[in-house]
Amino acid sequence: MTWLNDSIMRRRGVAQGRTPTLHHLTEALQGKFHYTIGPYSDPVLTIRPGDRVLVDTRDAFEGKVKTEQDLPSKVLTMPFVNPQNGPIMVEGAEKGDVLAVYIERMDPRGPNPRGTCAMIPQFGALSGTSLTALLADDLPEIVRKIDVDENGVYWSKRVTLPYRPHIGTLSCSPEIDSINTLTPDSHGGNMDLPDMGPGSITYLPVRTAGGRLFIGDAHACQGDGEVCGTAVEFQSATTIQVDLIKGWQLEWPRLETETRLMCIGSARPLEDATRIAYKELVLWMEAEFGYDRWDAYMMLSQCGQVRLGNFVDPKYTVGAAIDKKYLAPAAA
Amino acid sequence: MTWLNDSIMRRRGVAQGRTPTLHHLTEALQGKFHYTIGPYSDPVLTIRPGDRVLVDTRDAFEGKVKTEQDLPSKVLTMPFVNPQNGPIMVEGAEKGDVLAVYIERMDPRGPNPRGTCAMIPQFGALSGTSLTALLADDLPEIVRKIDVDENGVYWSKRVTLPYRPHIGTLSCSPEIDSINTLTPDSHGGNMDLPDMGPGSITYLPVRTAGGRLFIGDAHACQGDGEVCGTAVEFQSATTIQVDLIKGWQLEWPRLETETRLMCIGSARPLEDATRIAYKELVLWMEAEFGYDRWDAYMMLSQCGQVRLGNFVDPKYTVGAAIDKKYLAPAAA
Amino acid sequence: MTWLNDSIMRRRGVAQGRTPTLHHLTEALQGKFHYTIGPYSDPVLTIRPGDRVLVDTRDAFEGKVKTEQDLPSKVLTMPFVNPQNGPIMVEGAEKGDVLAVYIERMDPRGPNPRGTCAMIPQFGALSGTSLTALLADDLPEIVRKIDVDENGVYWSKRVTLPYRPHIGTLSCSPEIDSINTLTPDSHGGNMDLPDMGPGSITYLPVRTAGGRLFIGDAHACQGDGEVCGTAVEFQSATTIQVDLIKGWQLEWPRLETETRLMCIGSARPLEDATRIAYKELVLWMEAEFGYDRWDAYMMLSQCGQVRLGNFVDPKYTVGAAIDKKYLAPAAA
Amino acid sequence: MTWLNDSIMRRRGVAQGRTPTLHHLTEALQGKFHYTIGPYSDPVLTIRPGDRVLVDTRDAFEGKVKTEQDLPSKVLTMPFVNPQNGPIMVEGAEKGDVLAVYIERMDPRGPNPRGTCAMIPQFGALSGTSLTALLADDLPEIVRKIDVDENGVYWSKRVTLPYRPHIGTLSCSPEIDSINTLTPDSHGGNMDLPDMGPGSITYLPVRTAGGRLFIGDAHACQGDGEVCGTAVEFQSATTIQVDLIKGWQLEWPRLETETRLMCIGSARPLEDATRIAYKELVLWMEAEFGYDRWDAYMMLSQCGQVRLGNFVDPKYTVGAAIDKKYLAPAAA
Repeated sequence: MTWLNDSIMRRRGVAQGRTPTLHHLTEALQGKFHYTIGPYSDPVLTIRPGDRVLVDTRDAFEGKVKTEQDLPSKVLTMPFVNPQNGPIMVEGAEKGDVLAVYIERMDPRGPNPRGTCAMIPQFGALSGTSLTALLADDLPEIVRKIDVDENGVYWSKRVTLPYRPHIGTLSCSPEIDSINTLTPDSHGGNMDLPDMGPGSITYLPVRTAGGRLFIGDAHACQGDGEVCGTAVEFQSATTIQVDLIKGWQLEWPRLETETRLMCIGSARPLEDATRIAYKELVLWMEAEFGYDRWDAYMMLSQCGQVRLGNFVDPKYTVGAAIDKKYLAPAAA
Repeated sequence: MTWLNDSIMRRRGVAQGRTPTLHHLTEALQGKFHYTIGPYSDPVLTIRPGDRVLVDTRDAFEGKVKTEQDLPSKVLTMPFVNPQNGPIMVEGAEKGDVLAVYIERMDPRGPNPRGTCAMIPQFGALSGTSLTALLADDLPEIVRKIDVDENGVYWSKRVTLPYRPHIGTLSCSPEIDSINTLTPDSHGGNMDLPDMGPGSITYLPVRTAGGRLFIGDAHACQGDGEVCGTAVEFQSATTIQVDLIKGWQLEWPRLETETRLMCIGSARPLEDATRIAYKELVLWMEAEFGYDRWDAYMMLSQCGQVRLGNFVDPKYTVGAAIDKKYLAPAAA
Repeated sequence: MTWLNDSIMRRRGVAQGRTPTLHHLTEALQGKFHYTIGPYSDPVLTIRPGDRVLVDTRDAFEGKVKTEQDLPSKVLTMPFVNPQNGPIMVEGAEKGDVLAVYIERMDPRGPNPRGTCAMIPQFGALSGTSLTALLADDLPEIVRKIDVDENGVYWSKRVTLPYRPHIGTLSCSPEIDSINTLTPDSHGGNMDLPDMGPGSITYLPVRTAGGRLFIGDAHACQGDGEVCGTAVEFQSATTIQVDLIKGWQLEWPRLETETRLMCIGSARPLEDATRIAYKELVLWMEAEFGYDRWDAYMMLSQCGQVRLGNFVDPKYTVGAAIDKKYLAPAAA
Repeated sequence: MTWLNDSIMRRRGVAQGRTPTLHHLTEALQGKFHYTIGPYSDPVLTIRPGDRVLVDTRDAFEGKVKTEQDLPSKVLTMPFVNPQNGPIMVEGAEKGDVLAVYIERMDPRGPNPRGTCAMIPQFGALSGTSLTALLADDLPEIVRKIDVDENGVYWSKRVTLPYRPHIGTLSCSPEIDSINTLTPDSHGGNMDLPDMGPGSITYLPVRTAGGRLFIGDAHACQGDGEVCGTAVEFQSATTIQVDLIKGWQLEWPRLETETRLMCIGSARPLEDATRIAYKELVLWMEAEFGYDRWDAYMMLSQCGQVRLGNFVDPKYTVGAAIDKKYLAPAAA
């Protein structure tokens, strides 16, 4: 992809064309998967900036929902869900830097790949939950197994959805917290943002030495908001390239694609997630693209784009984006 | 547009190909504009289902912000803002029906058309407001006048935005409330939804005899969320066609375009607006498109699309949509 | 009550010891009760500042729930609930003034007085609602009739609750909106605040000529938040005294008792209602009690008192209060 | 106190009158204070159920704000604030049990004890924050040092507030998360609930072996909501007694005083915290006090009491309470 050469990752990353090594983070190499994202776990891999990693991710149910009769409330043990690969250490990464994670490709993994979607008791946006605590009965618990390949997500006889994979959970470690893998926050985490697929670069704030990159929770496709609580969860072979940008202090993750720059916020209520995302975008336009703060704010009111990631997790995730064409330097 | 013939409006409306009359709701005919949407105002026009109306709308500042020196806090008197045309009575409309409002086209009105964007004290998503009440100082008050024509919105020397007009405020009357024109709710109102432009059909619940249609608040373009509080507000010549669908009981407005169906919710916090929109969409798929309720819910988790209208008004507005292609009848 | 002589109402009201007339607003005099609070209804009574009114209020179900078999979903027709007495016009009241409403006493009205509590489908804090829209089943619909007298609320064989009556809905008219009687806002309305009982004075902003006072929705007792959606709703004989304070511009209602001053906010989410209440209280301490703004803010962080009115209505209500003893003038 | 003998702690705790040992957790014994609450830190003390511990707590600023010129933004390094004593291991405590923490007394510690209150940039309920992200300027940063003794909190020449100490942060460890000490959640944590003072018993869910009790953040007094972001923070000598209740599975902390039982929820938005607290209380009345679920729900609508803990921390805290007298067994 030619745009990549103009990406922030390529221009500011320390790799600078160094020939990357390709690592393979297999299940065996991973060993124990992780249910929290934090500074207290043992690294599974150390890479150099610019290296590529083929990551064998497990699905969010850790493969335990094998049939439509395997109800999550029976086969899962909370909080041991959404297993993460990592932590991957990146040489030279220090607090105050950024890891750039370019997702090259995502493939279904294993023979006869199937995805899993489930309605889980006390989970999902149109149900009472542990946080929006009600006395209403639970919705029914339903599991759906869906055939998946590179050409489609075979939802039902009636509907085939496009295969649009993305990574649901991606992050560096927080500085001192160790956060369960269901919760997104300023470190990243379980953002469930459909933009985070092949062709995207996510910029993650580094808060501990080595960055401690965690990755998992592949989705074969997902709608805005992930309204029932789960996407088409599948185990993937995901190839990423990781670079290091020194001295870029981010409060929240950001994302770049060929056409857009996005800032990401995660909070409750949902307007606070949206506020974070838009505020970060205004400040970014001011800091790096020559915009006056108020000009940026008023212009985003005319051309800002909002993506709802999840509104089912313990914090909700929103991305606020702008077309790159509006960020080109002013003509002389 | 050929898709129109297959639209819900054409298939279920009572007009059924009757040759429409074109009315012109001029400023003179309108006389007094309205600042509340309710059952207590005098009709300005009565039309038959299928009729077209060319509406001369005023901008949300009622034309009082003529230059960049006309600060809203000086030239406006709250709550007398966002003037509405109407009410237009539709023959035969009764509580329990729906008005279908197809927007044919929207043109800038008047010589040298200019739009207006403003940062208004205690308004906008990244400021304290009358509802998110803080002790912080106001943001600066800034007015921006922007040249507008059918080819673009000339934001600055650096940036020209596309001309993508839409109607910010559209509704029938509530049954007994008379609601200020800043507030969206289940009747419609100030939704500020960019999808509500030329080529869209909005379906509005009728709650009083005649429906009492109000329309106003044209925007030359607007980003998702209208983050600074205002769009490129302009006075428009907007041509609509209005039809009547008998016996369709809606709780909230809905919208149709060539490719999508959308349900619209307005509430605070923002997750509640989103819940309303998605719940309505699930129930619509169940009621009219042959979907099992839980199949619809789980499938929208994979392919639902969310549009943030405003998150600056007294209630926030969200649309949840699905591609029409997924609603086609199941093959025999 | 001796403290009354030192109240804001007595000190700043225009009545100044004028001998009050006692009016009796009977059901017959009231005629049609009101389901919206606004400027479009016909006055039922005009009084002079300082006059007393004995108001015969209906219960929030308008007496239609006569037995435990009369389910609200069957016997009520939305939005025709929570009937209000009024509007009562107060001579001399103009926009920018305040009506002071002192509640002298509240008695159960009629023979064998019984209150009514109900769980209503899609209503209440621990149920999905029309705004927190879910796919969960409704909670059961249950009606409870409760004997009430001045000595107690006879909830069950096991529990007798104290008789602590208050007025649930009290307000002047908004300037242009006409708002259903379920919704509190800056005009007052359905605040459901237990402090608004005998011995309290509520200060309401006047926004139209005459003030247009509405009152109704008596509760024999109510817990903080009115969690199931209804209090012990009963028809009352409520005696109020109304005075007029000229030139006191309030954004939101306030309340005075013998020991406390309170500011009241109504909004969603609940933190915004709380913010409004506390901000108003800080600004009040600054404007009228000689406090530096930041001293007031920091001190309320140590001694502010919060009362949750309702968190079941379309907007939630919170009062923030301070003990009067902390407002006494600084010693010379 | 005689009521203690009838408390849940005394009746169900395993200590059963065993003569308690008194431990003294000095600063020296504590050594390193903790900024997260989790399972990854080293215990400082192991006690037996029923033992008493005199805990020397540091203030939330860890003593670094010594004068009114020591601005928090200068002398503090985030996230290293709100230092906690512990973890204290309780013999026999296992996942599924409860620790009961009775606060016997709290005294100011050290010579010339002074408390500290501060307005901190981007913190407090009436300011933009890192979560309610705005473009408004910060409020001024102000530090207030306040003399404190057992007789009063000497706020200013004008105002002396009562000395009503409580513990702001109290919890067992989460199962796998390690959570910063600013954030309350289902484990307890930074609840900032004024009821948690001398004479109260807090019941905390045990999620790891030994319970891992953390305690800190003493306040000399605090208003409802802790609106400016801080209480009168002081270093205390706090004496607690800790007992163990086997096999009591709690989702959220609970609290008992002489007259009330309370359930505590922490979440955003504030209505969700309130929902959690009330739902827990309904279920408790059903499970242990012979109430029908809907009777409990409807009755709390008449007599439930709500306390706002904080609405300034990353999650807000609410307690919902009922008078014990309504829980007495029904007469035979």
